[in-house]
Amino acid sequence: MATRACCSDKKLPVNKQMTCNFSFKLTATDGAARTGKITTAHGIVPTPAFMPVGTQGAIKGVHHDDVRAAGADIILANTYHLMLRPTAERVAALGGLHEFMHWPLPILTDSGGYQVMSLAPLRKVAETGVTFRSHLDGAMLELTPERAVEVQILLGADIAMQLDECVRLPAEPADIARAMRLSLRWAERGKRAFEKAPAGGALFGIVQGGDDERLREESARALTTLGFHGYAIGGLAVGESEDVMLRVVAATAPALPADHPRYLMGVGTPSDILKAIARGIDMFDCVLPTRNGRHGLAFTRFGPINLRNARHADDPRPLDPDAGDRGYSRAYLHHLVKANEMLGAILLSQANVGYYQGLMQGIRAAIAAGEFEDFRCRTLEQLSQGDIAPLSDVACP
Amino acid sequence: MATRACCSDKKLPVNKQMTCNFSFKLTATDGAARTGKITTAHGIVPTPAFMPVGTQGAIKGVHHDDVRAAGADIILANTYHLMLRPTAERVAALGGLHEFMHWPLPILTDSGGYQVMSLAPLRKVAETGVTFRSHLDGAMLELTPERAVEVQILLGADIAMQLDECVRLPAEPADIARAMRLSLRWAERGKRAFEKAPAGGALFGIVQGGDDERLREESARALTTLGFHGYAIGGLAVGESEDVMLRVVAATAPALPADHPRYLMGVGTPSDILKAIARGIDMFDCVLPTRNGRHGLAFTRFGPINLRNARHADDPRPLDPDAGDRGYSRAYLHHLVKANEMLGAILLSQANVGYYQGLMQGIRAAIAAGEFEDFRCRTLEQLSQGDIAPLSDVACP
Repeated sequence: MATRACCSDKKLPVNKQMTCNFSFKLTATDGAARTGKITTAHGIVPTPAFMPVGTQGAIKGVHHDDVRAAGADIILANTYHLMLRPTAERVAALGGLHEFMHWPLPILTDSGGYQVMSLAPLRKVAETGVTFRSHLDGAMLELTPERAVEVQILLGADIAMQLDECVRLPAEPADIARAMRLSLRWAERGKRAFEKAPAGGALFGIVQGGDDERLREESARALTTLGFHGYAIGGLAVGESEDVMLRVVAATAPALPADHPRYLMGVGTPSDILKAIARGIDMFDCVLPTRNGRHGLAFTRFGPINLRNARHADDPRPLDPDAGDRGYSRAYLHHLVKANEMLGAILLSQANVGYYQGLMQGIRAAIAAGEFEDFRCRTLEQLSQGDIAPLSDVACP
Repeated sequence: MATRACCSDKKLPVNKQMTCNFSFKLTATDGAARTGKITTAHGIVPTPAFMPVGTQGAIKGVHHDDVRAAGADIILANTYHLMLRPTAERVAALGGLHEFMHWPLPILTDSGGYQVMSLAPLRKVAETGVTFRSHLDGAMLELTPERAVEVQILLGADIAMQLDECVRLPAEPADIARAMRLSLRWAERGKRAFEKAPAGGALFGIVQGGDDERLREESARALTTLGFHGYAIGGLAVGESEDVMLRVVAATAPALPADHPRYLMGVGTPSDILKAIARGIDMFDCVLPTRNGRHGLAFTRFGPINLRNARHADDPRPLDPDAGDRGYSRAYLHHLVKANEMLGAILLSQANVGYYQGLMQGIRAAIAAGEFEDFRCRTLEQLSQGDIAPLSDVACP
């Protein structure tokens, strides 16, 4: 089942094939769920993988060392933020993002398209690319498919993403179709730019098409024909219900080549992840572990816990004896959260990053053992025991 | 030179002597500078010692493990904050502060008097004690010398402080004298309360007297006659110049018994510490390492550095190759500080805690080698090379 994704690109003459350090090997399947190994110049990523989000070149509130210790094999960084500050050119001059932030393992960078949509106070999408106003200093900037690739190569990403146009849902069918087709043309331009660049690494295409399965399939097949190292499903977790998200994932994943990684962008809750893996997804990213940690919420095997809740004030038990939270009591964590002590945000963010990585380890082991369905059901049932409403219907912000 | 401080209290009949786990042994002197060892139930503290401040039971922005790794042998926690939240009774029910916050080494708690002065929106000092309004919920509370001791015993402090009245400088001579004499009467009541309590640990008296050397000497001699495990100089770093502070320290330290530790409360900058040690001080606490870290300031052997400064944006050098800052570049730290990333505050707070502990280690080694004067001069000269004005005239907030 092994494929060196980049080198299997038969459509290019040998001298035009990208020199890359990327391969994906499928190691087991269990229903639609899969385990695999992504190999990059900075190390191996077992899949299904969850990527903690280091938006500005740092995982919020958690030391890189603790992110590694939690078991993360890869992180995500945001092109939009880093191109504005400190700028891709500066990061490149300082040796690239791995060197800059002292993270020696693989890094995936997004293309900036999603943040342009969600953060820039003004933006104009044209065939060429997207012009937008920086949310930091108001400067007008342009991101083209070529520039998005250039920026990500300057950053030194192991996995770069094509520039796409991401439409917030619900949206008009015509707008969804237009954005999907534009994203496809940008995918082709992005790929050409990537092939011209001397750097190694991988480029993923991004499936768009909103909540329309037909458009999603069309997008997936067209991207597969173009040929990428991996394929992402974008434009989800942008306002739709969990049902819609899972329906789109279920329709899209089978339309993508089995021997390449599939990445569901911006997802999600533990429940979302379990359900998406059951539909053939290999990679995830989400800010939930750290964002919730900063807000006093802890993920545990027995569901999410709100540490602000007064009922934890006298509770000597740790969040979870196995969850890598250094065994601090719920009473202490409650105190830190109530007192707005940074250490509360730090410990909970770290515990949540640990929880997510532990979940992924459990998932990988279950798939390898052919017991994923049992694992998924048992875990979903356990998760409903937390002291706050299950997050299963909350799309990842 | 060894003295078991608590057990050498000759004024009490043997059956009234406090059962305690505290001793101080002077190990070397170099001029007025001294090294020693404080032994407590939770471990040994080599002096001169700097205590990072864990106001609410946490060092702001730094994992306990990293505080220990930085070399801290003792921390300070604030009675005022902890008695308000989560309350001393709750901490006691959860096993005491060491267990609550997972800090296994010695803890000194202040008496709450200073925070009542600086934080409570309303306070009334009477012979009985001080009545004040909680800055958290507006509740009216009373702190008496007896209650201050009780709270600190509930917290499980290795070293407790008597309740004192701290006067902000400049102040009227009559008010300074009144507060000093009241603090002396409270010292006596605090000592009686401490002797009645079953707990071990130590109680320190606090010298008051503002900027008046004569009053300071009177306070020091009266406290010595009462007999405490150690002696603090309070009511400094409250608005006076460095000159005044050092003048008072120089007049007070010789009036305190040589075989007991001397603690200069709330001080200070590296320069303050070096100069106070040259005048016979053994213990310090200050929020500067963590507060400055949160504000983008790094202490280094070559003076303080303001990481917000744009001139660090492209600088690949770490703060100090030996300073335990994990080698992150100034460029990365600058980026984190500018981007308000929590990791910036974390890394700089940690580096600053490490700097202070490294400074104390250097000081102890220099005194032991009889080279303190040379060390002090060399260090003060190095410190003037930072990119911001030396902090030597800044009293510790």
